[in-house]
Amino acid sequence: MQFDHAGIATDDAAPLAELFAEAFGTPVVHEETFDGLQVTFLEMDNGYFELLEPLPDADGAIPRYLDSNGPGIHHVALETDDIAAALETVSNCGIDLIDEEPRPGAWGHDVAFLHPKTTGGVLVELVEH
Amino acid sequence: MQFDHAGIATDDAAPLAELFAEAFGTPVVHEETFDGLQVTFLEMDNGYFELLEPLPDADGAIPRYLDSNGPGIHHVALETDDIAAALETVSNCGIDLIDEEPRPGAWGHDVAFLHPKTTGGVLVELVEH
Repeated sequence: MQFDHAGIATDDAAPLAELFAEAFGTPVVHEETFDGLQVTFLEMDNGYFELLEPLPDADGAIPRYLDSNGPGIHHVALETDDIAAALETVSNCGIDLIDEEPRPGAWGHDVAFLHPKTTGGVLVELVEH
Repeated sequence: MQFDHAGIATDDAAPLAELFAEAFGTPVVHEETFDGLQVTFLEMDNGYFELLEPLPDADGAIPRYLDSNGPGIHHVALETDDIAAALETVSNCGIDLIDEEPRPGAWGHDVAFLHPKTTGGVLVELVEH
């Protein structure tokens, strides 16, 4: 598998996107609201940053993460061209699945999250474009 | 700039390396002890995981991180072919530098860390191979 993106929890995506674009040369290439979040993708040469800002009064994993941890790196996403097969592989390796089946994610991708308690504390997302 | 690696703090790198290799197809490509750490690089198609396990009784940022946060994603590293110029660029953007000058990092690379308080809570490492 290959790196797809680093997911960043933030309470103010716009200035962070502007800063990263200027400092790291990673322009905004996609924005949408999805699942209670303002989602902003910044393009690196070989992947993306995904900025995740909760919409006002939204509930969910990212607002809870921000409350507990503050802003920062929330997850790492790996790209696969067959997410169903990848889920079977990782499950057979003893990794617990948060999403037993692929589900629609931001930017029209199919995604599934793996349980960090079984991946060394790392929240891993699988993504099929 | 482009993604280079995700740095993972762990207290037990060997089984995690084995799990990731099997589950994600990311084999171990480099191991060394460096700066009080057992450092293990796993290769993705377009970058690396860097597993960081403190040596027994070692002090430093990773043991402190593990004490405070438990295991998980510690930093994201971006590759540049001119780290001195990149540090000047990011500094001019208002990002504070933990390392004012590049310093030797693992695997013989030159590295410099940026202050997460000025990068949205994200600990970013710049790397020149």
